[in-house]
Amino acid sequence: MSYLTAQPAERILLGPGPSPVPQRVLRALSAPTLGHLDPQYLTIMDETCAMLREVFGTKNALTFPVSGTGMAGMECCAVNLVEPGDEVIVCVNGVFGARMKDVMERCGAVVHALEAPWGEGYTIEQITAKLDQHPKAKVFAIVQAETSTGALQPLEGIADVVHARGALLLVDAVTSLGGHELKVDAWGIDAIYSGTQKCLSCPPGLSPVSFGDRALARMDARKTKVQSWYLDVSMLRKYYTGGSGAGGGRVYHHTAPINMTYALREALVMVLEEGLDARIARHAAMHQRLRAGLADLGLGYIPSRSLHSLNCIRIPEGANDGAVRGRLLTEYGIEIGAGLGVMAGKAWRIGLMGHGSNVRNVDLVLAALRNILK
Amino acid sequence: MSYLTAQPAERILLGPGPSPVPQRVLRALSAPTLGHLDPQYLTIMDETCAMLREVFGTKNALTFPVSGTGMAGMECCAVNLVEPGDEVIVCVNGVFGARMKDVMERCGAVVHALEAPWGEGYTIEQITAKLDQHPKAKVFAIVQAETSTGALQPLEGIADVVHARGALLLVDAVTSLGGHELKVDAWGIDAIYSGTQKCLSCPPGLSPVSFGDRALARMDARKTKVQSWYLDVSMLRKYYTGGSGAGGGRVYHHTAPINMTYALREALVMVLEEGLDARIARHAAMHQRLRAGLADLGLGYIPSRSLHSLNCIRIPEGANDGAVRGRLLTEYGIEIGAGLGVMAGKAWRIGLMGHGSNVRNVDLVLAALRNILK
Repeated sequence: MSYLTAQPAERILLGPGPSPVPQRVLRALSAPTLGHLDPQYLTIMDETCAMLREVFGTKNALTFPVSGTGMAGMECCAVNLVEPGDEVIVCVNGVFGARMKDVMERCGAVVHALEAPWGEGYTIEQITAKLDQHPKAKVFAIVQAETSTGALQPLEGIADVVHARGALLLVDAVTSLGGHELKVDAWGIDAIYSGTQKCLSCPPGLSPVSFGDRALARMDARKTKVQSWYLDVSMLRKYYTGGSGAGGGRVYHHTAPINMTYALREALVMVLEEGLDARIARHAAMHQRLRAGLADLGLGYIPSRSLHSLNCIRIPEGANDGAVRGRLLTEYGIEIGAGLGVMAGKAWRIGLMGHGSNVRNVDLVLAALRNILK
Repeated sequence: MSYLTAQPAERILLGPGPSPVPQRVLRALSAPTLGHLDPQYLTIMDETCAMLREVFGTKNALTFPVSGTGMAGMECCAVNLVEPGDEVIVCVNGVFGARMKDVMERCGAVVHALEAPWGEGYTIEQITAKLDQHPKAKVFAIVQAETSTGALQPLEGIADVVHARGALLLVDAVTSLGGHELKVDAWGIDAIYSGTQKCLSCPPGLSPVSFGDRALARMDARKTKVQSWYLDVSMLRKYYTGGSGAGGGRVYHHTAPINMTYALREALVMVLEEGLDARIARHAAMHQRLRAGLADLGLGYIPSRSLHSLNCIRIPEGANDGAVRGRLLTEYGIEIGAGLGVMAGKAWRIGLMGHGSNVRNVDLVLAALRNILK
């Protein structure tokens, strides 16, 4: 068996992620590999964590990229915050809420699901009622940006009712970080995870997480070992916050994905160069531009409050789901997403994330859909 | 806060990993990012898995790169093969054996450790005696290439005694795959994990694993859910072996680290271009060359049977561990490894892995040590 070097096509990634990666980030990815305890690498990692804090809107010392994709971040939060027998409340209104329930149950949690129709969000009243129904709940988990439905869940105010009942607020921000307003400290979020391949426009492979003081106190008070060695924050924090300089104070845990850290660092430099507020405003403007164009084509949204980064639209009557996506890919090199879970065959998901959220892509995908659906 | 693009130095990585990454692999890493369900990406992944089979010496259909570094591969094997209450035997003669014991215990296993002095290996007689002592053991786990001590563990014949007692043979090959003889099928290995950043000379970020029929049968017979969602092979296999073509038969699990897969694929192309046997012979020859040079310098090995890929040597009397490694790094740009665990302050670890295992590096590190230790 022998193969040549692969030559991946230059797609325009307008699906649910990965999003288009800027050349600058790809170049950073291919910089020379350093050792994971090299002083230069430790500086690169420290700078990456510092920039992640800015983008998360937090001063949490324990803010770092987990060495896996977004789902590893979800699992990292769950295994560290939950002990067997703990009651937790998980909001389930899409694939990722359902996954969080599954992940929590695998940690031995007793999960109380707060269900909502797919595409809908939750009010503070619904959340408060559920918390009052389960006063022993130790964690309240909710998805800010449900990638399967495109629904945006507002988070302001939730921490107040959660903390008043002694629970921790855990948030999934995989498809919002760097593209939507997100204020970890101001909104009282105790633990949060995201991915690199969405609004940060870095390839997939890392999952930024952040843990606040309440979450650290919960972890410090654990009676049982964290079931995952790879994701055990009690060890990871000795590496990620152990000090700086020539390995001083750092405790080796596992070999970090060195080159992926370079890419994430460069992607964050680009976020801060643009300015986080400007970037969020750009995502909002491009969403409005796409929404207006889709309305002209007679295409409607599924969620009542849509993400700016992911547009989940109803497949029009008579259109062949696979054929349309296939033509977009082969004729235009454009990837959009199929429906996921109960949305399969019913929805298309058009991502406008990070570097990919621009006028050129919006107008192109609208032109392509106009042509294909005519 | 604002940062410029990072400019990682061009180190010569002669530590315990990561190893030097060829420019070809770095270029592959920075190819355009595809979607994880793009037909082109699925082909790239299928080819990567096919080449992994060749390098592992197996026909196992379930051979794929776990989306994390080497320790994620270890955890993947443990969580899938072990259920709470299962008895397992783990050989502990270094840091990675000790970690495997820890990981297994976190899965709820009752672990019987087969201890040996650090740097030493095991005989078939010792293994047989331990198996007979614990006839209910369901897994026998051993490290082929103990990265903390540089000891090589021969594996031929072990499967016979393990299988005769109904147990599975699990092997850690993180520092051997692609640099040492390793024949998964011929040696009867049921489950194995490795890393990309050692003898394959790809950046860290993926962990190749392979599961044979006995391991699959064990997983199919599980009574409990795998405790890790991220590493649950019952779901992962639907993505990695679900079929080919335009997403047909594939079931989405998580977003794979796309660009890391490109890099691994290119690294494997290079392994097969060189020829696996030639590559293994090169590692042996470079080890002998280094060993002879170290003897001239009066430097001795710690393990009785050394890996070719990692040379664990005793720090000579009077030498300052940190100062010597510091000078190697600052004056020569050479990274070698410190001692790990009980070896801290007593050992240096000189890696000659993959692309880094060549005459130029051997003679350079010897010249540098001669100069610094004079």
